[in-house]
Formats: sequence, C-alpha cells, structure tokens
Amino acid sequence: MTAERIEALREEMRKYSIDMYLVPTSDFHESEYVGDYFKARSYLTGFTGSAGTAVITMEEAGLWTDGRYFIQAEQQLKESSVVLRKMGEEGVPTIKEYVQEHLVKGGCLGFDGRVVNASTGMAYKDIAEKKGGSVQTEHDLVGFIWKERPAFPKHAAFILDEIYAGVSATEKQRKLRDKMAQKQADIHILTSLYDIAWLFNIRGSDITHVPVVLSFAVITTTESLWFVHDEALSQELRAYCLLQGITIKPYQEIYDYVGKIAAGNKVLLDPGIVNYQIYSSLKKGVEVLSSPNPTERMKAVKNSTEISNIRKAHLKDGVAVTKFIYWLKTHIGKEEVTECSAAEYLEECRRQQDLFVDLSFDTISAYGAHGAMMHYVATPETDAALKPEGFLLVDSGGHYLEGSTDITRTIALGELSDQEKNHFTAVCRSNLNLAAAKFLYGCSGSHLDILARGPLWNLGLDYKCGTGHGVGYLLNVHEGPNSFRWRKTPGQSDEGILEAGMVTTDEPGIYLEGNYGIRIENELLCKKADKNEYGQFMEFEIITYAPIDLDAILPEQMTLFERRLLNEYHHMVYEKLAPCLEPEVRDWLKEYTREI
Amino acid sequence: MTAERIEALREEMRKYSIDMYLVPTSDFHESEYVGDYFKARSYLTGFTGSAGTAVITMEEAGLWTDGRYFIQAEQQLKESSVVLRKMGEEGVPTIKEYVQEHLVKGGCLGFDGRVVNASTGMAYKDIAEKKGGSVQTEHDLVGFIWKERPAFPKHAAFILDEIYAGVSATEKQRKLRDKMAQKQADIHILTSLYDIAWLFNIRGSDITHVPVVLSFAVITTTESLWFVHDEALSQELRAYCLLQGITIKPYQEIYDYVGKIAAGNKVLLDPGIVNYQIYSSLKKGVEVLSSPNPTERMKAVKNSTEISNIRKAHLKDGVAVTKFIYWLKTHIGKEEVTECSAAEYLEECRRQQDLFVDLSFDTISAYGAHGAMMHYVATPETDAALKPEGFLLVDSGGHYLEGSTDITRTIALGELSDQEKNHFTAVCRSNLNLAAAKFLYGCSGSHLDILARGPLWNLGLDYKCGTGHGVGYLLNVHEGPNSFRWRKTPGQSDEGILEAGMVTTDEPGIYLEGNYGIRIENELLCKKADKNEYGQFMEFEIITYAPIDLDAILPEQMTLFERRLLNEYHHMVYEKLAPCLEPEVRDWLKEYTREI
Repeated sequence: MTAERIEALREEMRKYSIDMYLVPTSDFHESEYVGDYFKARSYLTGFTGSAGTAVITMEEAGLWTDGRYFIQAEQQLKESSVVLRKMGEEGVPTIKEYVQEHLVKGGCLGFDGRVVNASTGMAYKDIAEKKGGSVQTEHDLVGFIWKERPAFPKHAAFILDEIYAGVSATEKQRKLRDKMAQKQADIHILTSLYDIAWLFNIRGSDITHVPVVLSFAVITTTESLWFVHDEALSQELRAYCLLQGITIKPYQEIYDYVGKIAAGNKVLLDPGIVNYQIYSSLKKGVEVLSSPNPTERMKAVKNSTEISNIRKAHLKDGVAVTKFIYWLKTHIGKEEVTECSAAEYLEECRRQQDLFVDLSFDTISAYGAHGAMMHYVATPETDAALKPEGFLLVDSGGHYLEGSTDITRTIALGELSDQEKNHFTAVCRSNLNLAAAKFLYGCSGSHLDILARGPLWNLGLDYKCGTGHGVGYLLNVHEGPNSFRWRKTPGQSDEGILEAGMVTTDEPGIYLEGNYGIRIENELLCKKADKNEYGQFMEFEIITYAPIDLDAILPEQMTLFERRLLNEYHHMVYEKLAPCLEPEVRDWLKEYTREI
Repeated sequence: MTAERIEALREEMRKYSIDMYLVPTSDFHESEYVGDYFKARSYLTGFTGSAGTAVITMEEAGLWTDGRYFIQAEQQLKESSVVLRKMGEEGVPTIKEYVQEHLVKGGCLGFDGRVVNASTGMAYKDIAEKKGGSVQTEHDLVGFIWKERPAFPKHAAFILDEIYAGVSATEKQRKLRDKMAQKQADIHILTSLYDIAWLFNIRGSDITHVPVVLSFAVITTTESLWFVHDEALSQELRAYCLLQGITIKPYQEIYDYVGKIAAGNKVLLDPGIVNYQIYSSLKKGVEVLSSPNPTERMKAVKNSTEISNIRKAHLKDGVAVTKFIYWLKTHIGKEEVTECSAAEYLEECRRQQDLFVDLSFDTISAYGAHGAMMHYVATPETDAALKPEGFLLVDSGGHYLEGSTDITRTIALGELSDQEKNHFTAVCRSNLNLAAAKFLYGCSGSHLDILARGPLWNLGLDYKCGTGHGVGYLLNVHEGPNSFRWRKTPGQSDEGILEAGMVTTDEPGIYLEGNYGIRIENELLCKKADKNEYGQFMEFEIITYAPIDLDAILPEQMTLFERRLLNEYHHMVYEKLAPCLEPEVRDWLKEYTREI
C-alpha cells in the first residue's frame, strides 16, 4: 500500500515538475501532535509515530525520525522500501544535508508551504536556489492522492473560566502588548495553537488530547484578531470575544490579511513556528522582528491560581494512578490483564475524578520489551498479556480544568532479574537527584541535566531523549521554553532559563531494545529558595504524587542521601493521598511508601 | 596621585574633543596578562588586578572588574574618587550600557584602537554612531601623560624543541592551512601570542610568567609571515625560521600589510582577539571570515608527546609542593614564616626541579582573610605572618619545558573552626565529584559545572568565577576553549566541547570576605572512556599529585563514594611521589595520604 501511495505521489510530482517532495509531520500551526487530517506522512509511509519527515525522490523514499521512534519506525517500515534515517546518529545526514546532496542541479523542491515553518522553508529555498533550482510550496500533493482523507477539524471551542486560568484574557493581551512595545512591534502574528488558547483563555478539541482550537491570531497595538472557523463558535463564545476585545475573522483569511500588511510595519513573529506560506505572504518593506513568541515564556510561568489548581489536579491524578497500581499489584496472575485493558482501567480511574476533561495523551502501557519503545502505544494487534514477572511501563496523564498531568511509573508485576532491579534503582536515583537540585537563578535545564543523567552515564548507559519538558495548563503536555536536556535543540531560540512557576517533567529512563524499558517521571515545580550575597537560589517541589515501586528498589545501591530523598517523597505521597483513598488501598499504600 | 593622573587625562581628552575615554587592560594582542608597558589602566586608577576597564568622563571615573577582584579593587580604590562597578552584580550596568547611557549625544568616544578587540571596538562605534557621535581610536592618551613608562618589551625568543612540542612547526602550519582551506580562507591573521608561539614552536619572555614573544602572524596559502622585533631574534632563530618556512617582518608593519590586502581576498580572523586598529585597516571588498582561531582548539588538544611530558612536569611539581607543605607543617609555630617567605620557599622547591623555566604566575600565598581575595598577591606592605591556626591558601604553578602546572592547596596551619572544616570538606567534595565525572562526548564544561558547584549550592554558597580553565603547554596557564563554567562567557565563540587531550583545572572554592578562603585545585586530563551504542563516553585523569590536607577533612560529611575517591587519589599521590622524596618527607606523606 505504501509503495502504491508513493508511486501515486511521484505521479503528481511529475505533473508539477517537482524532483523532490518533503512531507513533514505538521499542521498549519507547527503543532507537535496533529489531527488525522494532517497525518499525510503517516498516510504516505505507514509510520505512525508523532515525529518524522518523509523525503521522496523519483529513486528513493526516506523517513527521518528521532531516537524515541527508532524501534517503532524500524518495525513499521520493514515491509516497505522506505529507508529509515535515524536522526542524530553518526553518519546520518540531516534532511537539509540530504536535500543539499540529492536535489538535482536546477531541480525543483516541493512541499506544502503551510506545513513547513518559515525558517525551515527559507533554508530549503536557499539550498534549492544555490543549486540553481527553485521551490514549489503552493500544492499539497498528498492531498491530491488521499481519497478518504479525514475531515478538517472544526470542533466547538469553550471558555476556560478565570477561576482556572487565573488571569483574564484582557489582562493577558495587555501584558502581551507591553512585550510588543518593548520590542517596538506594531503587529504580532501568533499561529501557535497553545499560545492562542492561553492568550484568549479558550480551549477546544481540534487535536486529540490537545485541547486547542485550530486558529490564527494577529495582535496589533489596538486590535486582537482571531482567525477561526465559524463552526467552532457558540453564541456564548462570540459574546465572550466581544467582551475580551477579540475580533473574529474567518480561518482562511489569515493569508490575505498578512499579505495586506502595509510596508513600514514592524511585525513580530517566530519564524520557527509561523508557517512558510504566511511568512512569504508578507510584502517587501514589512520589517520582520524574529523572536520567540512572548506568550511562550508567559504561559510557561504559571500564575499563583494555576499553581494551586495544578497541585489539586495532581492530587486527583495521584489517586487515580495509585488505585491503578494497587489494582495491578493485586490482580496480576489472578485474572487476565493486557496492556490495553490495564490502560482502560487507568483511564476509568481518571474519569472518576472531578473536573476531568480528557487524557492528556494516549496512555503508554508497555509490557516487557514494548517498554523499550519510548512512545509505544498498544494496539489490538500488539496488545500483550501481562504476566506476573517483569516490568509494565505506564506513561499517562490527564487534562483537568485544574491543569494537565504527565506521570510515568514502571511497575514490577512479579519476579525481576538482578539487572532489572539494578537499572530500576539507577533510574530512581537519577530522578531523585535532579528533583533535589538547588541552583542559582540563571541556570537552564542544560546545566542540570547531568544530575539525572550522571548516575546512568556512570554505568555506561544513556537515554536518547531529553530528561524532561515543560507541561502546559490544560494544553499540550509538552511545552517550552523550559526543559532538561544537555544537547542543543536545533533552532531553539530561548535559552530556557528556569523561572519560578515553571513546571517541568523529570523522566530519566533505561531502554534495552528487545528486553525492557524503565522510566520514572515526576513533575517538578520550580520555586525560589533563599537569596543571599551569591544570588537567588532556586529549587524544585515535586508535584506528582504516586508511589515509586519499592519491589524494584535495591536500597544498598543508593546513598543515604538518596534513600532519605525517596523516604521523604514517599512520606509526602502517603500524607497527601491517604485521606482520598479507600481503606484497603490506603493500607496498601502505607506499605508501599514505607521507609527504606 | 590617581586624581592628578585622571585630571591630566581629561586635559588630553579636551585637546582631542573626546567626551569619554576607555582604558581597558590589554596589550595589542588581547593577552590576558600584560607587560608593564601596557598597564595603562593600573597606572591611571591604582587598581593592579589583572582584569578591569577604566571609563573616564569629565564628571566621573569608573572601574569595571569581575568577581575575582571585588575585594582587592575596593581596597585599592577606596582613597580615590574612582567608582567601582562590580561586573555581573544585579543593577550594575555593563560598560556598553554605561557608554550607551552616559555618552553625550553627538559625543566622541575615545580609546586606543590597538588595545580593544575588533568586536568590542565595532560595538562601541555602533553605540556612538547611533547617538550621532563618533569614535577616535588613533591616540593612546594615557601614553601622552605617562612620563616614566616602562620600555616596550623586546626580549630574546627561543625555540621549543620538538622533543617537548611533539609536532614540528612545519607540520602545524600544514594542518592550519588544511583548516583554512576548509573555511575557504585565503589569508589568516593571527595576533594571539599563545597561538603564534604554539604554531611556530617558539617561546619568549615578553610577558612576566607568560613565555611568549610580542608578535603578529599572517598565514597565507603559501607563506607564513611573522611580524616581530629584530631584538627578539638570534641567528639560530633566524635559521630556524628559514627552515620552518617562516618569513620575518618588522613588528610594526602588520598595520601596513593588512591595509594592502587586495579586495576579493577572504581573510580568516577572530574579531574577539584581533585588535580594532588592524581590523579597521582592512580595505573594503576584503571578505572577513569571523571565526575562532583554528589554532585555539588545535593547541588545547595536547598531543601524545605533550601529554607524557605534562605528566612528568606534574610529578616534579608535586614533589616541590609536597616538600613545601611538609616544611610548612613542621615549621609553623617554630620559626617566623610569612606569606612572602612561604612563597619564596615554594619557588625554591620548584627551582630545584629539572627543566624548570619559570613560575607560571605570581604565587598566591594568602593567609586567613587574604585567602578570600581570589587573586591576592602578597606584597611587602601586606605580607602577613603565619600563625599556627587557620588556613594558608597557596595557588601556584611552574613552567617546565615539559609543560605548565597550576595547583592550589589550602593548608591547615593549626587549629580550625568547625565551619572551616565544614567548608574545606565541602570544597573537597566539589573537587572530587567533578573529577569523577563520566559523560558522553559532546558535553562542554557548562554541562559538568554543577557537579563541582552543586555541593556548595546545596549549602547556599557559591564562588564568583568559573570552576576551571584550560592550561597551556609552557604558555598561558589560562587558555580556551575548554573550561568549567555555567554562566555564558560573553563573546565566547567556541562551545568548548571537551575533547580527549584537553587539560582543564578543577578548582572550586569558598571565599568569606574578611574571614578566609578555601580552594582546592587539580588539573584534569580529558580522556576517552568506553564507546558503546549510546556513544563515546569520556572521563578525566587527575594529573596533579599533592596531598589534600586531611587535617581539615570531616570524613563523616562525605559519602562513602567520595571517601573512596579521596582515598584512591591519595593512594596514587603517594605511589607517584614516594620514590622522589627523602625519607622524612616520604614518611610524612604516607601519614597525610592515609585512608579515611
């Protein structure tokens, strides 16, 4: 099927005289996860991971993806002729290097300009032109061959009340205009769905598990324009927009609007997010101020209302996860449980919680060797029965009106090997050491990453991803600019200095292909500690409340300090959760949070 | 005196219609330490530290310096009207911000274009021009008022034999031309004295304790030009240059030569090092390729001959330092010893070593509160008598034909307070934890810094400087691009990825103003560890051999792992040094390297 689709695409390429065609994983907003309508790369190649780019020439079809997906992509591509390019591995060219090398002289490089960001689009254009060639960006070739394409999402949007958002949309727009004035911007083009949702205190359901509304925004010194489909808007929402100073425009009109911005205006935008089609619609004479969206950092620093809400959401989420672990520990070996049925049970535990909205992403319920695939999602075809041995890795989360959660627990279902216990203990030490960091203001996650990675590096191990990411408030569970990672993220424009109020995950892991995966993930709230002549010290509060499986811990491999950290964490978990649990779960938790 | 000199300078400023005049700390080569001839800022302000910039207007005189010198500068400036600006502290403007704010509209900013690097000079020009003003860079105004200025240094240069350098000058030039070709450069202007000395395997003595020759170099695809004073050259050296393909030119001719480079040429240079006067001599149409000097990284990665030599140099240096500590421990309280006499004794111990050339910097011998001044150098006026109590901090090093050393030991002279022991133990833990790092290739010092700083941050303490710096081979003891520091160094263009063969100091410390200073410094050689599916792991070998004072250690405050690290280090120190020591020193060392 893949072969036929690629051949059909090549047919279209010939029609338009395109020599090489790129199919990235993106909607028109550079969203991390995309609705089914936008899954062109997946349709074309059969690889269903959330990140990857297909590059098609007349001779070759390649797929680039990152370390999270190497194992999955290998499996999904093995029947096809698509060549897997493992990003970041030695000797593997980047997509740009590949284009540079393989685009024929004077050739035409094609891509849909709406699904490539401006920076990348300009870089491609530059490469093509230096080879005497050109780019074609007006045509969505996959759209031409995709017969039963899902509908474009236009779901109903809703207002996030100020008791949850903490700050009104009017006030947020005012603060954004202050930031624009500091940068001397006349107009700000905002296409990030998360930032728009945050700015206007509006949520939707246009992307599975990401409660956003497909829309664009333009903020001028006096106006806020919201380019959105009519179908998304209720009367209540229209009235709300009127009150909050938000003018509604049709979704498609953004390109026209941008094309009419008069020369001389200074337009603030993030070329790493705004799509190439919008960017190239700007007239000559319009001055572009390239900068991260000011809202990125504004929304990353949670306000006091959000913080107190988030703690409540985590308490509920911890109750759900703890019930789930209890159930697993007491049912495995007694009745049939599979990866999928376990995930369903966990979802049910979350749905019972007050103010629950949705899962914050597809639950990863990965048994044994499946756990080594970092972003494995069980399907009916792969669904494994859980036996009373080895590890079940469960990475899951919930969206609540009080915020979003992201938690991973790796659960011993029975007997473990010595190596499994060694590795689990090492991952636990990594997790605890990062959470215990105290550091001077000005540090970013790159300075702290070794605290988590060090214990694994000392064993000659590593995980091929960052240690953690920012978490949105009833938004994308992955958000910037904060993260824990030592490798530079190409194109990241913000240094990611850790600010009080930022929430970042702490999720080191060990992944042994064909064997097992271990990950322990808590969320950390960054807070101010003491300030003295050396500067402002910062520290973390762990806001995830669920036991770390003591059945897999070897206390003798932890320092006294690390054991104290684990004991203190478990003491807190018990104190927080106990009042919300039934007696038998509470008693079980008491035992599973005991001092070691 | 300071007041009179500043007034005399203002008189010159009026003559040339200069409104603001900058006096940085630099020679014409952006050297870190400068000969007396170049100490214009010190002459003008009375502050003798190695880093600092004076900014003089008609109304105000300010001095900017960094954390190493806050205490010293406060003392040396307190009788004057010069305002101390503590760089990096909250609310203190940078020099550029100050110029931006205080240069009058349409005003003239003056500085000697030879003592300001091109990047900084262009930034100043930009600031001045944006205010409708201009820069004047032709006049060395301090030179006009400085009656008894020391002579311009033109000391004899000498050849560093290949048995010490490891690679011939011819071969180094060949490799440099390869790097130039990679960057498509036709011409390379090299003004860093360290890089020139390394490239040509030539040393000199034009800067106290920095064995370099004041000179410039220009490398073309076929020629190597060395702009150097006649007085520096022996017949032997001239013959050597002929053999190694080095053409000799007069020192002053560099400006003319650069001014005559034809348009169309691509000139590789580091605008952070090449002086503004050279840079602004380039004709229009010459294309500048701004880049760190390729030689910076080439010389930082020591070759195998250098590495085996360096280990030998450290062994000798360790013998000298150990003899010195033994002498201190057995003489304090029995006869009069002062900071200066202690430093002299240590120098004598070094001079007894084979192939010793010079001290690698002025010995810091700082007793009690003096130790809190990071770069204190005792003078006859400040020379303190050592009592059998508290700490003597000794930071010292030697140049040998086999390499340069840099070592700090803080020595308990008798009774210590609990806090002194706590702090010494914490610094020791910091030092050991960094040295024990294992990490993936690609890390730079910024990723590892927290390993040293973390134990102090956890106590709410910090040191206002980097944790360590690269060390030259019979060159400047401070060299890049490698370092351990988490704060970004403004203008640093190399990311400082740690390569096998780099030598970096590991020198955390605690400095309590008016009280005491503690620093423990070892040098670390970066080496390859195992390579596996996760990548190339790297680790350090400690190449400094001298005991860390167990009289100041509280073993119960160290983890078992840290105690093991200290015991292993001490075991190695004893094994290496014992064969080179007299019996009574050896017996003493046995006791002072005992297991804890």
